[in-house]
Amino acid sequence: MSINYLVEQIKVKKSPIVVGLDPRIEQIPAEVKDKYFAEYGNTLEAVMHALIEFNRGIIDAVSDLVPAVKPQIAFYEKYGIEGLLAYKDTCNYAKEKGLHVIADIKRGDIGSTSKAYSEAHIGQTDINGTKVSAFFSDSVTVNPYLGDDCLKEFVDDIKTFDKGMWVLVKTSNKSSEQLQNLKVDGETIYKKVGELVNNWCEQTIQSCGYSPIGAVVGATFPEEADLLRAVMPHAYFLVPGYGAQGASGKDIVNCFNEDGLGAIVNSSRGITFAYEKTGEDYKTAARNAVIEMRDDINGALISAGKKYF
Amino acid sequence: MSINYLVEQIKVKKSPIVVGLDPRIEQIPAEVKDKYFAEYGNTLEAVMHALIEFNRGIIDAVSDLVPAVKPQIAFYEKYGIEGLLAYKDTCNYAKEKGLHVIADIKRGDIGSTSKAYSEAHIGQTDINGTKVSAFFSDSVTVNPYLGDDCLKEFVDDIKTFDKGMWVLVKTSNKSSEQLQNLKVDGETIYKKVGELVNNWCEQTIQSCGYSPIGAVVGATFPEEADLLRAVMPHAYFLVPGYGAQGASGKDIVNCFNEDGLGAIVNSSRGITFAYEKTGEDYKTAARNAVIEMRDDINGALISAGKKYF
Repeated sequence: MSINYLVEQIKVKKSPIVVGLDPRIEQIPAEVKDKYFAEYGNTLEAVMHALIEFNRGIIDAVSDLVPAVKPQIAFYEKYGIEGLLAYKDTCNYAKEKGLHVIADIKRGDIGSTSKAYSEAHIGQTDINGTKVSAFFSDSVTVNPYLGDDCLKEFVDDIKTFDKGMWVLVKTSNKSSEQLQNLKVDGETIYKKVGELVNNWCEQTIQSCGYSPIGAVVGATFPEEADLLRAVMPHAYFLVPGYGAQGASGKDIVNCFNEDGLGAIVNSSRGITFAYEKTGEDYKTAARNAVIEMRDDINGALISAGKKYF
Repeated sequence: MSINYLVEQIKVKKSPIVVGLDPRIEQIPAEVKDKYFAEYGNTLEAVMHALIEFNRGIIDAVSDLVPAVKPQIAFYEKYGIEGLLAYKDTCNYAKEKGLHVIADIKRGDIGSTSKAYSEAHIGQTDINGTKVSAFFSDSVTVNPYLGDDCLKEFVDDIKTFDKGMWVLVKTSNKSSEQLQNLKVDGETIYKKVGELVNNWCEQTIQSCGYSPIGAVVGATFPEEADLLRAVMPHAYFLVPGYGAQGASGKDIVNCFNEDGLGAIVNSSRGITFAYEKTGEDYKTAARNAVIEMRDDINGALISAGKKYF
């Protein structure tokens, strides 16, 4: 599923939003999980069933409103094999619903090992000549600390299988500055990484004007986003940090190009667990939270003269 | 299992070696895998059985010779849920044999997500008040690109559960230089990361004189290793790059302190698939490869006046 499809869906749904699916069993509503605890006890199996039902419910509630979902694999790994079965179900279910699935895995290793990660998530695994998909996603997040020979392995599969990736450039957390903001010859590391990403982008621009090789740029640093927008004109930005992490619509307009495209903004807890604040059922609360977020972002884009629809 | 136990086992076994368990189904001997392909076809299930049998065979062959094994999780993820079942079996089997298990996962994310990874691999997962271990390991590799609030989450579990971690400082691959060798005020990024690691080390030194917070320092860069040894005197180094990646005993002596301790050297393919070159059965070949590597490294350490046994 190409970047072309993602951009088309953003326009059709008027919604540059990705819903992060980071389940925490303690925050899943009682009406979802209690029956599984009753049946399976306090076990990983019970968690698996609760995660699957909850995520399917969220996907059903928002799939007509957003172009993409982003499961964060850490919140499935912590529930072991059973958690990863829920992860796999979630990715496959979102695919059935026509959503772009961003696997937030932040992998990265030396070449042959990155190749294995790439095969696992966006490529194919060879078994004695038979090709299988270990896990399904349309795109993955990748950590650049090991350099180009790590990224290259993903790029190969992106080209072969029409997939995408998002390279960590400037993350949304406070201590991202420790490494990412260090200056080399007057330029920050995050800018250097942005230039590295841009090199890959320039070679892979698709008909929508963007590359399937994007960048993670935190919503929490608007000035950095402005600079990075210029460094990587053809990269889509995956923007974490909206909502629970503190950023709002006006903070993220710098992540978008003048055409109103070029960024997709993530919110996880702010959508999936919106019910905790509103008292509505969790699906209605998630749906309303998406609509509120969409209107906030679209309003901010219109104010900034960056209308895309 | 503390760093104290790892150091003790290195001395007892006279072997600062970790065997990397990075299975590739195409390299697993026919006598292991063919019966599973016959029974299950070209499926992930067949791969799972082959990986489990192969890894147990390697562990049986080397467990009296080495203190540790290091499964690289990418080579299990690529075989999906079934691959991760083999990963889990491998970690648990190695634990039964008294080996220190290094989970080579290279995870790292914002605080709350790193916490989930830490719980998954070295901590515990809470299910409605019941504590479970999703995956077992004694220590994990961690990517520092997101800074201290990522590392901190692992440090908390290291203290609580007597575990360890290895922070990527200078990796063994060629393109590691793209980011890691950039200079900030005349100092490389890898040195800056080394200083960051040393801050955590100084707070956590155990009775053996070392901290459970170590560093990944590639065998392929002896000069960098020399510099980093001085930056992090109390950090154990996990040293990849020996054997298949090109480094030999003389290249890695700089990773060790004057006491002959402070480093554990990994070899993966060079041991597990040694049978391809020697024509022996795979267990005998792996055992002989470990002995050869041990004698090479111990010889180099003695020549350098760094005898530890």
